Amino acid sequence: MPSTWIYDPCPAPSSDYEKAARSRQAILTKPAGSLGVLETLAIALAALQATERPRAARAPIILFAGDHGVTAQNISAFPAAVTVEMLKNFAAGGAAVSVLARELGVPLSVIDAGTLAADPLPGVVTDKTRRGTRDFSVEPAMTAEECDAALGAGRRAIEALGQPDLVLFGEMGIGNTTSAAAIASALLGKAAGEIAGAGTGLDSAGIAHKVHVIETGLERHGLAGPVSDAVRVLQSVGGFEIAALTGAMVAAARARVPVLVDGFIVTVAALTATRINPGCRPWLIFSHRSAEQGHGIVLDALEARPVLDLNLRLGEGSGAATALAVLRLACALHNGMATFEEAAVSGRAEP
Amino acid sequence: MPSTWIYDPCPAPSSDYEKAARSRQAILTKPAGSLGVLETLAIALAALQATERPRAARAPIILFAGDHGVTAQNISAFPAAVTVEMLKNFAAGGAAVSVLARELGVPLSVIDAGTLAADPLPGVVTDKTRRGTRDFSVEPAMTAEECDAALGAGRRAIEALGQPDLVLFGEMGIGNTTSAAAIASALLGKAAGEIAGAGTGLDSAGIAHKVHVIETGLERHGLAGPVSDAVRVLQSVGGFEIAALTGAMVAAARARVPVLVDGFIVTVAALTATRINPGCRPWLIFSHRSAEQGHGIVLDALEARPVLDLNLRLGEGSGAATALAVLRLACALHNGMATFEEAAVSGRAEP
Repeated sequence: MPSTWIYDPCPAPSSDYEKAARSRQAILTKPAGSLGVLETLAIALAALQATERPRAARAPIILFAGDHGVTAQNISAFPAAVTVEMLKNFAAGGAAVSVLARELGVPLSVIDAGTLAADPLPGVVTDKTRRGTRDFSVEPAMTAEECDAALGAGRRAIEALGQPDLVLFGEMGIGNTTSAAAIASALLGKAAGEIAGAGTGLDSAGIAHKVHVIETGLERHGLAGPVSDAVRVLQSVGGFEIAALTGAMVAAARARVPVLVDGFIVTVAALTATRINPGCRPWLIFSHRSAEQGHGIVLDALEARPVLDLNLRLGEGSGAATALAVLRLACALHNGMATFEEAAVSGRAEP
Repeated sequence: MPSTWIYDPCPAPSSDYEKAARSRQAILTKPAGSLGVLETLAIALAALQATERPRAARAPIILFAGDHGVTAQNISAFPAAVTVEMLKNFAAGGAAVSVLARELGVPLSVIDAGTLAADPLPGVVTDKTRRGTRDFSVEPAMTAEECDAALGAGRRAIEALGQPDLVLFGEMGIGNTTSAAAIASALLGKAAGEIAGAGTGLDSAGIAHKVHVIETGLERHGLAGPVSDAVRVLQSVGGFEIAALTGAMVAAARARVPVLVDGFIVTVAALTATRINPGCRPWLIFSHRSAEQGHGIVLDALEARPVLDLNLRLGEGSGAATALAVLRLACALHNGMATFEEAAVSGRAEP
């Protein structure tokens, strides 16, 4: 029997602390609203953390990895072996997200939620039921039990956290833009061709082939048009790391931990999580708009306005980590600026 | 006789180090180009600093302040007294840019280049010839000698710096969006109504009045249509802090110090600097696109693609300081990531 925790209600952010934060922003020594997104970020964090002093200091990065059976259809510019090779690179500190974590002074946890690795890797947490999903263009990517276990891997990662100020998620998995595009296509009822993009670097012929593979899978599993059962979509065409991300987002919201969402893959997991459990939506802060074709469509569906637009398309949590630096400045401004009264600065001229 | 240093040639960035940085980005463990703007920033800094390891650690913020005679025409939502009140707030650490400087660990120098302050203020460098410009809607804002001295204030601030990794500029001056809009209008040959915006918070009637005041000034000084003599424009309708910023940008370029440009006012100074001395353009990195109406037009004229778009409209250098956090991450990635060979990660699949 599948577990039901994923449907349990999420708490609401604090409207009292949101109001207090908004009032404080209005009396700081600057024209009202002139810090733009830096103000809205601080106010959102204050409401989520239920505090007068929002913080983004303790912000661990959790990276979930998985392999994808659909890589048998040649839908990626890189070979599937790269997933496991990159896990070693994350652990050794040479990958982009490793460098960013070090620079920002935050811990990076790497979780193998279903890669092809035969044995546990040093510096990597193993929490998986299977080595890679099945090829969704010919059969369901996972069984119901496997999907349930992968959602649970996300929950377990959050339970291991303590209570950080917020959490950042990243992902790694050759082939996962194909799975993510298939999920988004099914949930939004959009053509695969509107959503699937270049991933790690396909040319236009490669993208056309990827679209065809996704269409084949969606048809095989009866996933045309907007599909309301998001767990079924995840099980049919998803990935273990995407399911873990989905579970982790619901679990984070239930534990009152704000989430800084990364790029296309993590945003598709966010879409899946909100379709399963809409109460998690307020806990999600969107870090950036990536260069991957479908990202903007998924962000729009979530009514998300991301902080950055840097033409990134790497994944790993690299966009979320970059946005963390901005969030920290937003918190510092909110907590550290003087008020008009404290600084003896005149307000607006009388009209 | 006006000084001529402002026209002296600027050095070019190093094309050798640019090529080397581009080559390094291509072998780091990520799909080519997938770090987007974070790659282009690191490459640009490497070329400007002529180094294999671009840095953004030593990045002082210099804030130039000035008052504007045109405030007599009621073109600002805040009274002119706020300029000097804010200088005290900068020095006391309560303003937005003070908080950001502290959080980023960079020094903030505040230079009174022409405010109404009668006496030197503690924690503020005084380098001015006059207390405030004249009202440009009735007479030239400065004499030629005063304009020359204000350009020199910028140069002196750069000479006092040593050799930092880059420099950030900010500004303060009630009324300076009016002066900046007048300058941009004259240099670009655009109607004042296209460029002038809300500044610190005018309503639509206030903006219409501001546009009328600018038009009056431009007409009085014969500055309709694109004007090629940027120094004359600066002298006629500019501000002391804008002239100092202009001089500082040329001096920074001549000293091989990259500049991180802030919002509307500093970008107008950048436009002025490039019109006076086009060789300074490669040394300017644009930090953000602000909410002020004319900023996009001036950025387009400079063919600038700013790093951030956070709906800021505060000035002070706050946008440049926020972008510094992103530049630092770009440098860390460039210098700290492993190559495919070092990490034993496979490259693209053979087609």
